[in-house]
Amino acid sequence: MSRTTVSYKDGHIYEFSPDLEPVYTAENGESLTFETIDSLNKTIESDDDLLASIPEEVNAATGPVAVEGAKPGDVLEVEIEDVRVNESQGRVVTAPGFGLLQDHDDIEHPFTRITEVDEDTDTIEFEGIDVPIDPVIGTIGVATAEDTISTLTPHNHGGNLDTTDMTSGTSAYFPVFQEGGMLAMGDSKAAMADGEMCGTGAEIGTDIDVTVSVIENPDHTLERPLVQTEDSWKTIASAESMEDAVELANRDLIQLLADDHDLSLTESYTFSSLSGGLEISQVVDPLVTVRNAISREYLDNPF
Amino acid sequence: MSRTTVSYKDGHIYEFSPDLEPVYTAENGESLTFETIDSLNKTIESDDDLLASIPEEVNAATGPVAVEGAKPGDVLEVEIEDVRVNESQGRVVTAPGFGLLQDHDDIEHPFTRITEVDEDTDTIEFEGIDVPIDPVIGTIGVATAEDTISTLTPHNHGGNLDTTDMTSGTSAYFPVFQEGGMLAMGDSKAAMADGEMCGTGAEIGTDIDVTVSVIENPDHTLERPLVQTEDSWKTIASAESMEDAVELANRDLIQLLADDHDLSLTESYTFSSLSGGLEISQVVDPLVTVRNAISREYLDNPF
Repeated sequence: MSRTTVSYKDGHIYEFSPDLEPVYTAENGESLTFETIDSLNKTIESDDDLLASIPEEVNAATGPVAVEGAKPGDVLEVEIEDVRVNESQGRVVTAPGFGLLQDHDDIEHPFTRITEVDEDTDTIEFEGIDVPIDPVIGTIGVATAEDTISTLTPHNHGGNLDTTDMTSGTSAYFPVFQEGGMLAMGDSKAAMADGEMCGTGAEIGTDIDVTVSVIENPDHTLERPLVQTEDSWKTIASAESMEDAVELANRDLIQLLADDHDLSLTESYTFSSLSGGLEISQVVDPLVTVRNAISREYLDNPF
Repeated sequence: MSRTTVSYKDGHIYEFSPDLEPVYTAENGESLTFETIDSLNKTIESDDDLLASIPEEVNAATGPVAVEGAKPGDVLEVEIEDVRVNESQGRVVTAPGFGLLQDHDDIEHPFTRITEVDEDTDTIEFEGIDVPIDPVIGTIGVATAEDTISTLTPHNHGGNLDTTDMTSGTSAYFPVFQEGGMLAMGDSKAAMADGEMCGTGAEIGTDIDVTVSVIENPDHTLERPLVQTEDSWKTIASAESMEDAVELANRDLIQLLADDHDLSLTESYTFSSLSGGLEISQVVDPLVTVRNAISREYLDNPF
C-alpha cells in the first residue's frame, strides 16, 4: 500500500476543539505523511516582511486525521519517523507584544530574519552563522475534551507545545478525548532553542512521516501529552505560570514512577529529585510548557 | 608544592556577606581542595532522622578562601577538576513547607531516605534502584556586593545555585564584588535532578579539587555567575519567579552573543531562539535558578 500524504492543502485547522471533522481516516497502525506550511502561512518571505501583530490565523495544523478505533480514554501513539524541511528558507521573527524580551528597549519589534537552507551542509544560515537543521514540530495535538483552543495555545490536548523532543526518532503520546482522536500538526521549525525566547524558531514547512496507533485500555491513563525519546520518558505540562507547569509535570512523573516501581508517592517524589529533571519547552505562548524527564532505565513503557 | 586542603573544620559560613574573613589565602592560579560537610551537618544519618523544619544553619559553605589580587570588577574563575564523595551515604529528604509539591496531600513531610554509596559500581542505592554518582556542588559563591544572604539562597554572587553543571570538568565564573573574591562552597549532592524538586538531592560530603584564577580587567564584566561546560556556555540567573529568572538569563546571553559576533541585540535575541536554550537549575530555594545555554561553537570565551 502506498503511503498517504495529508497536506495542509487538503485541510488544516486554527483551533483544536471537541468536534473536529477529519480530512482523512487512518487505519490503526498506518504510516502516513503530514505536509505542513510554515506557521505564518508564507506571508514572511524576505527580511522586509514584518509582523506588525500576531495574525488571527497562525500555526495552521494539517489535518485532522482520525485514527480508526480511537475512543475517549485510549492513548494515541504518534511515532515520529522523520521530519524534513520542504522549502528553501525559514524565518525567525519578533512581533510587538510577543516574546520573552518584548519590553526590552533595545530590541526591535517587529523584526524578521530569513534563514536560508543549505542542503549540502544540512544547515540554516543566520548572519553568517551556520546552525544545523534539527527540525521540531511546534504544534501537535488532538481534539480537545471540551474547550475550543487556538493552535497558538498549548494545553492538555497538546497544541502549541513547542517542544524540541517532537522530532524524528521520538514517540509522542496523547490522551484521546474524542472518537478518532483527530490528530493535527504543523508550525514546524528548522531549528529551535528550548524556550523559543523570541517567540519563534526558524519557522518552515515540513513533511512529517509518522505511524499512528491506538493504545486501547491503557494500563496508565493520560491527562496530558507524554513523549518517549531515545533515552528518556518526559511528561509535558502547560499552564499559566512556569511554577504551575513544573508542578503538573512533576506530579505526572511521580505517579508514573510510583506505578512502575510500586513506590509510595513520597518515595517516587524524592527519587525524581535525584535523576533526570525539569526542562523548559517554551516560555512565550499564551501558556508556557515544561517537561519532566526520567531515563528509560528507570521507567518502563507505562501503557 | 603540596596541594592545600581547606576543610569545613577550618572554617565555614552560613551567610555570604560583603565582609567575610578568609580562612585561607590562595595564590592566583593555585590548585586546592575544599572539604565539605553535607548540607544538614550530619544530623540525618538514618531513615528515622526527620527534618521537622529547615534548620537555621544549613548549607555550610567551606571557606571563604581569598584569592590574591582579586578586586571588585574582576572575574573569579573556578576550574572544577574533581568532586569526590567522602562518606558512605547520602540522604534525600522532604521537610514541611519546603519543596515543589509541599502541598500535595499524599506526600509525607518530613520524610528521609538514606542513599548508600556502592564504591564498586559508583552508584547510590534508592529503594533497590541504582543511580550513578554524578556529584553536584549545590552552594558555591563569593562575597556579596552589599547584602547578607543565607547560604540557602542563590543570587548574583552565586550561593545556593543547585546547578548540575557545578561538577567536575566545568569552569564556573563569578563576579568579584570584594577584595580577594572570598570563595566558599558546600551543599554537595551525590546525584541531583535538574529542578531539585523535593528540595534536596542526595546530600553528601565531598572533596572538591579546584584551581582558582583571577581574570583582571575582563573584556566582559559579569553581573551574575556563568559556567563553561564541555560543550556550552551557560548564563545563570536567580530571581523570585521563574519568569523573571529566564528573562535575566536570556538578557545576559544575548549580550554575550552580540559582543562576540558584533550583532545587534535584536539579532542575538532571535539567534538565541534557534540554538541551545533555557534550562532549569532548581525551583525550590527561596529564589529559583535557571540557565541559558549556548554551544561553545557559537560563543568564544568572553573574557
